[in-house]
Amino acid sequence: MLYLFMEDTEIPKLAPSDLCLDKPAVDMSSAEKFLERSMALILEEAVKRATNRSEKVCEWVSPQQLQQLLQLDLGDTGESEEELLQRCRDVIKYSVKTVHPRFFNQLFAGMEPYSMAASFIIEALKPSIYTYEVAPVFTLMEKVVLKKMIEVIGWEDGDGIFNAGGSLSNMYAINLARFHHCPDIKELGMSGSPRMVLFTSQDCHYSIAKAAAFLGIGTKNVYTVPCDERGKMIPSRLEELILKAKKEGAQPLMVNATAGTTVLGAFDPIEEIAYICEKYRLWLHVDACWGGAAILSKKHKHLVQGIHRANSVAWNPHKMMMVCLQCCAFVVRDQKHLLQRCYSSNARYLFQQDKFYDVSFDSGDKSIQCGRKPDAFKIWLLWKALGSSQLEQRVERALAMAQYLTQQMKARQGFRLLMEPEYANVCFWYVPPSLRNVPDGPEFWNKLHKVAPVIKERMMKRGSLMIGYQSHGDKANFFRMIIISPQVTTEDMDFVLDEIHSLGQDL
Amino acid sequence: MLYLFMEDTEIPKLAPSDLCLDKPAVDMSSAEKFLERSMALILEEAVKRATNRSEKVCEWVSPQQLQQLLQLDLGDTGESEEELLQRCRDVIKYSVKTVHPRFFNQLFAGMEPYSMAASFIIEALKPSIYTYEVAPVFTLMEKVVLKKMIEVIGWEDGDGIFNAGGSLSNMYAINLARFHHCPDIKELGMSGSPRMVLFTSQDCHYSIAKAAAFLGIGTKNVYTVPCDERGKMIPSRLEELILKAKKEGAQPLMVNATAGTTVLGAFDPIEEIAYICEKYRLWLHVDACWGGAAILSKKHKHLVQGIHRANSVAWNPHKMMMVCLQCCAFVVRDQKHLLQRCYSSNARYLFQQDKFYDVSFDSGDKSIQCGRKPDAFKIWLLWKALGSSQLEQRVERALAMAQYLTQQMKARQGFRLLMEPEYANVCFWYVPPSLRNVPDGPEFWNKLHKVAPVIKERMMKRGSLMIGYQSHGDKANFFRMIIISPQVTTEDMDFVLDEIHSLGQDL
Repeated sequence: MLYLFMEDTEIPKLAPSDLCLDKPAVDMSSAEKFLERSMALILEEAVKRATNRSEKVCEWVSPQQLQQLLQLDLGDTGESEEELLQRCRDVIKYSVKTVHPRFFNQLFAGMEPYSMAASFIIEALKPSIYTYEVAPVFTLMEKVVLKKMIEVIGWEDGDGIFNAGGSLSNMYAINLARFHHCPDIKELGMSGSPRMVLFTSQDCHYSIAKAAAFLGIGTKNVYTVPCDERGKMIPSRLEELILKAKKEGAQPLMVNATAGTTVLGAFDPIEEIAYICEKYRLWLHVDACWGGAAILSKKHKHLVQGIHRANSVAWNPHKMMMVCLQCCAFVVRDQKHLLQRCYSSNARYLFQQDKFYDVSFDSGDKSIQCGRKPDAFKIWLLWKALGSSQLEQRVERALAMAQYLTQQMKARQGFRLLMEPEYANVCFWYVPPSLRNVPDGPEFWNKLHKVAPVIKERMMKRGSLMIGYQSHGDKANFFRMIIISPQVTTEDMDFVLDEIHSLGQDL
Repeated sequence: MLYLFMEDTEIPKLAPSDLCLDKPAVDMSSAEKFLERSMALILEEAVKRATNRSEKVCEWVSPQQLQQLLQLDLGDTGESEEELLQRCRDVIKYSVKTVHPRFFNQLFAGMEPYSMAASFIIEALKPSIYTYEVAPVFTLMEKVVLKKMIEVIGWEDGDGIFNAGGSLSNMYAINLARFHHCPDIKELGMSGSPRMVLFTSQDCHYSIAKAAAFLGIGTKNVYTVPCDERGKMIPSRLEELILKAKKEGAQPLMVNATAGTTVLGAFDPIEEIAYICEKYRLWLHVDACWGGAAILSKKHKHLVQGIHRANSVAWNPHKMMMVCLQCCAFVVRDQKHLLQRCYSSNARYLFQQDKFYDVSFDSGDKSIQCGRKPDAFKIWLLWKALGSSQLEQRVERALAMAQYLTQQMKARQGFRLLMEPEYANVCFWYVPPSLRNVPDGPEFWNKLHKVAPVIKERMMKRGSLMIGYQSHGDKANFFRMIIISPQVTTEDMDFVLDEIHSLGQDL
């Protein structure tokens, strides 16, 4: 027993000597000092040094070696502040510098100070956005940002939510489409329901298949529509598949059009797909996680022409708009609380209806998450800092830089483009001198297939740059270079080409 | 056209004068300066001031007023650095200080500097944890932390993943149980499958029902098992419901046992539930998001006795262990790659099999997310800082503090406990003097039901503390006070009681 028995009104006496309850068990001033020192370290190592061209993009160590080096095991006793700061230093040292101007490996890149400051504030404040009560500022901000995105897309009004990733946004869309067509499934499940079919292009993001598995729809009920040679969905083939599904007695549910595919950066023809969706009354979702930013540019918004005819859109400002990870919006054209009706569970401990303020501001019941981070703040602060006009310029500059790079490739020997890019994905092969005179054919492609992995290994070990590679359809391994950051210059582009040549010329 | 036509080998000339490509379009030194200034601001306002007892927990402003005050709209032109910093200051000012020692409103609280420093590092480095290639350190760390949690739970080995929230972890469990019983559903979906039934207590977290809706199982196929008066699942009633489902021809799938319910902090009797699950061959998932930390304390681990018999466990270090939001582990006892087989989609652009390192380290194909934050780093650094022994003390201190508070309540007039707490949830009514002589009965409870919302409104407007209230089953609105942080002292407990009395004595 912790406490002595006592009279009804007597103040109890505390017992356990090792648990001092009448004083804080942490020293706040040393906590603040630790934070101060770690902030200085972050600024020096994870910001200044990590973005410095004369430093490495990555410090490659094999998993086995790194395990030994970092001594990660967790034990009974704590470590000193000095040891902990050294650990932070090591974490930064051996982490990949995705903010480095020569990181072109993913659909995100670059150091963006405004969203980063917002991120830090979020981490310090520890908010969770489900009720206005606990997250007043962020609740309003999310609404404003969603409204802005809805306006930019071209809808009169709508609804939405920020999610922990574009994959989740795509899941939201599929579940919402299902609820829209068959609201009973929310309560009854799918076991008695007809087979439902989703349509998406063969080049779409893998999250569509993951979602189909997760939601109980089944990956085989994702009908993949063939693409043209540029990676765009062929609308006539979509219509054929819809008719096929109907003939099979299945229920066509939703079409996912991709605005900016992951590998080729292709844009499905939304306008044509919208006609087909309207004809067959299918939900049209646009996965614009990557390509959504095109809409900010008057010059490039034709890429997403027809997006206003979609029922829902996923758009990740953490990609082309450079917001710190993660920042992923899911917006819906519906104005009749479909999102709320689909996702609500009315938890009484959180969404009390007898609160003293207007509870329609509590956004948490639209989400499949309970605790949720206020990611909208990051894009909000960046948008406030730059305004739409500079955001537009950023997109245009990135795409112009991709054009510059392709022109350079054409001008050099040994680089071969898969296609002219229309977005910020530049896909290309590096053909080493030994293969330049081998005629196109199985031997050439088999050999070329092995080139990119070796160059990738070498660039990682040298730490000079990072670019992803992959095979795609029947295409042998090629590089996919992604250009986003305004830090990047033509000199970096020239460097990339020189460096790849230097890394691969002996192959 | 951006570029002039050119000969094959000629270097192209850049055109658009407004998009300068040969120099960075951002000034890195001013970016760094902005970050430096915002960090100083965060330390001052969001750390020091936000944790200061003489400052308010919240600065209540109604949604309508706050909208006007903050001028949130997004426009065409950017703002100055000064304006942006002022905005950051306002964001902090009007946000709830969840790190304040008098915030007892959610299942998270307090300022924890080590996980906070780790959070800042994550935000600065912008990592995404799916491949070892892009997140080497964090990939290894996640493995180590999961292994430690698996060891603490008492399994020989296992697997796991960190997720964006405990709700998602519970979804992972249900989908995994489904895959375990019927692997075909991943491909074929549920439309041809038998009706599947989940079992969980009536007091479980609402994410179980959300998951059932989302996964296509249906909320009506969640059979809720009655609880005893302490909020613990009654095992005999569980068995009855399993037999009922079988009689109906449905397929019982999984039992969710809650270790630490959201409102009452109750622990379902895992050992007894495990026997039933073994008897009927059902997947046993333990939602220990809140109560998992009990396992760290020799004194309190009896609360989760039998947890080693579970097939999967959800455990959120961001709750009782105070890690910055979010930090949510999902661990699985299976050692035969069930998680991988259930979730994999083998995206070729990310999980290339011809990489130069051991690709079994790439963890991303176990996840429903694509990009994923390395949340394990936050608990890792905290664990390194404190060691298991101090983590144990923290849990024991929080629970001792809850005991202190309940003793104080017994010693005062006007406070009435729902029950003796066995964890860190202290659930109680404040009975204002006007009701103290009203006999127990409908009139008393109807009047008491209205008390907590008014006191809550007043405490928000005064900004002196934050505690949640709710009704629960047939219980009238009561306060649920959550005690976590080692900053909190007996004086804070006394303050809470004085303050509630001061806010509610006239009611």
